Amino acid sequence: MAEFARRMAFMQTTADVVRNLFDSMTDPETISFGGGAPAREALPVELVHQIASEVLTRDQRGAQALQYGNPTGIPELRQAVIDRLLAPKGLKAGLENVIIVAGGMESMNLVSQLFLDPGDVVLVESPTFVQSVQVFKLFEARCIACKTDNNGLVIEDVEAKIKQYSPKMVYVIPTFQNPSGRTFSLERRKALAELGSRYDITILEDDPYSEMRYSGEKLPPIKYFDQTGNTIFVNSFSKIFAPGARLGYTYAEPGIIRKLYEVKTATNSFTNVVTQILCAEFFNRGLYEPHLKLICDIHRQRRDVMMSCIQSMLPGETKFVYPDGGLFTWVELPEQVDTTVMLADAMAQRVAYVPGREFFVEGQPARNNCMRISFGAVTPDKIPVGMQRLAQVVHARL
Amino acid sequence: MAEFARRMAFMQTTADVVRNLFDSMTDPETISFGGGAPAREALPVELVHQIASEVLTRDQRGAQALQYGNPTGIPELRQAVIDRLLAPKGLKAGLENVIIVAGGMESMNLVSQLFLDPGDVVLVESPTFVQSVQVFKLFEARCIACKTDNNGLVIEDVEAKIKQYSPKMVYVIPTFQNPSGRTFSLERRKALAELGSRYDITILEDDPYSEMRYSGEKLPPIKYFDQTGNTIFVNSFSKIFAPGARLGYTYAEPGIIRKLYEVKTATNSFTNVVTQILCAEFFNRGLYEPHLKLICDIHRQRRDVMMSCIQSMLPGETKFVYPDGGLFTWVELPEQVDTTVMLADAMAQRVAYVPGREFFVEGQPARNNCMRISFGAVTPDKIPVGMQRLAQVVHARL
Repeated sequence: MAEFARRMAFMQTTADVVRNLFDSMTDPETISFGGGAPAREALPVELVHQIASEVLTRDQRGAQALQYGNPTGIPELRQAVIDRLLAPKGLKAGLENVIIVAGGMESMNLVSQLFLDPGDVVLVESPTFVQSVQVFKLFEARCIACKTDNNGLVIEDVEAKIKQYSPKMVYVIPTFQNPSGRTFSLERRKALAELGSRYDITILEDDPYSEMRYSGEKLPPIKYFDQTGNTIFVNSFSKIFAPGARLGYTYAEPGIIRKLYEVKTATNSFTNVVTQILCAEFFNRGLYEPHLKLICDIHRQRRDVMMSCIQSMLPGETKFVYPDGGLFTWVELPEQVDTTVMLADAMAQRVAYVPGREFFVEGQPARNNCMRISFGAVTPDKIPVGMQRLAQVVHARL
Repeated sequence: MAEFARRMAFMQTTADVVRNLFDSMTDPETISFGGGAPAREALPVELVHQIASEVLTRDQRGAQALQYGNPTGIPELRQAVIDRLLAPKGLKAGLENVIIVAGGMESMNLVSQLFLDPGDVVLVESPTFVQSVQVFKLFEARCIACKTDNNGLVIEDVEAKIKQYSPKMVYVIPTFQNPSGRTFSLERRKALAELGSRYDITILEDDPYSEMRYSGEKLPPIKYFDQTGNTIFVNSFSKIFAPGARLGYTYAEPGIIRKLYEVKTATNSFTNVVTQILCAEFFNRGLYEPHLKLICDIHRQRRDVMMSCIQSMLPGETKFVYPDGGLFTWVELPEQVDTTVMLADAMAQRVAYVPGREFFVEGQPARNNCMRISFGAVTPDKIPVGMQRLAQVVHARL
């Protein structure tokens, strides 16, 4: 077997964790707070079935759905993005600003291909999303973590690290962050956009969760404050439509979209047309808005049950984030509990989470007593059962 | 806007050609022999509609189709690949040998991510497939062309260039090649597999067309002769199921598949589950084999009409390949005709092709009087109309 490329050596550390997460999601006896899946009950199965039955015919869109597509995506879906997803955020766009891609993660890969040379520095949050770090590492970037607090990235630390490292990019999930559930304040959003402009750095704004708001006030995205085109806004349809459809989009300046067209062509030619058509119909039939209400209702209940379980079941010294939306909370156990070591106990009790250590990179100390808890994929009756198992495992470690 | 990565400078030369091809496919007045699409009439629209109507329900596979998937793909589709596509070629495989990807081109990207460092050499055919070269260039590889004749790559030239350039990979489409329509002989297949083993080089065997055989005897793939795991066999469902479903697969040693799992995770997490389920059902309901017969019947007729048009309409000195399958023939016009210059005349007459020059890279002289003619996407009644337009343009240049 021929030798692997150098970049493969950068990837090895966390791949097992990701693999284990996917595996734990398939064991029916384990209650998994590990994966980031949304509620199965919130999937628009009946709506998609009806759309497919009506439009995948020879008379309607069947032949188009099965034939080659364009690397930028079908115009109806791009227009739905512009009218139904970007405009309500105050983002003005034309078709030349939007490319459809194969899921949220693909934007991270395409933007990395476009901007990152080996050795380039990417500033990230602490904690940060492990799968995006894997992508940046695949492109041999060095990821440096900046300080965060309950209002998001600490801007002074970002600016200090910009001066120290001359980074190419800053990667953030400003709303209901994965893994912490935290949300950037308005001031931090504005300040980060301005830093991107002032230092000519790409701000990669990853926004898969902001539509899933259960409480609190909506905030404009970082991209809203971008005056120079330095912010690239990437998003996914996984949480508002369906993960299995593998759809996402990137919103950026036309000059960036034209380059992403080339990279997309050399990655997988174009995004599958079948689910693009199903998703465009979902929007154009007016099904999105009522379905989003259902999604929020289902997940709000799960969030509330989870918050109540954490407060009543975990040790009194436990700290945790109260998320206004999304799928995650970040739990900080008493100092002496190492959540990485504890995971084997938890798995034996058939409950899963992701140890906090996995979300830390160079630049900030890892927190061994933290864990990411996902509440989206577990039904409200099962959340207390799983949390009871987890609480027993935690108490046994005190 | 921040500066692009160095790799982007490698890509610029042919992206416009690819873009123009996609554009010419959407003008209804132009008869395009340019794109590589299969016949619209051969798309399994009714079959897919029926499958979707039956299985995308809550009781059946609807929730699975819309939920997160595994980076390796759904087991049923991998098993269908093993039983229905690999076994008939004499290739023995288990689930650990197969990963499902998002279309044929994605395998080229993932394998490049896995093996290619900047500056690595990839040996290719002359002419070679322009889109794959774009992928290798995106990874800053240097593509060197080797001599070909009517039996495929000239093995002596490949071995000489292995010694000269120490390449990392040899990329070939051994059956009904894109762009030439040519097929490697049995001896050349065996010899190339052996070269890969002897020099520890990856042979990347791209096989999207071999099922579309209209005449002549089936040949085993290069992978069949591989004793060391150096050959990686990649394929697409675009020609035997549907391009719009964006499905393909890679068949290789388990150690390579495990690494491709990591790369796939960091590219787009997993392949869309909706069309994986539709495609697996297509195989498991026994629909594939009769549908393949229909595909071959439709395209055989188009091939025959095209061959007859070339012989009767183009100048007597014209040489061309008689392809036993696939979608392409390679036409060599009299020396004085420059097909790149002529393309503007052709487009004005509403007929499109791809100029031969686009398919040549460093190492072999470009052939300016050649063109790739695709016969798959044009109905048999329109082929003579388009070829008459093209013949007029050619004769005007003599």
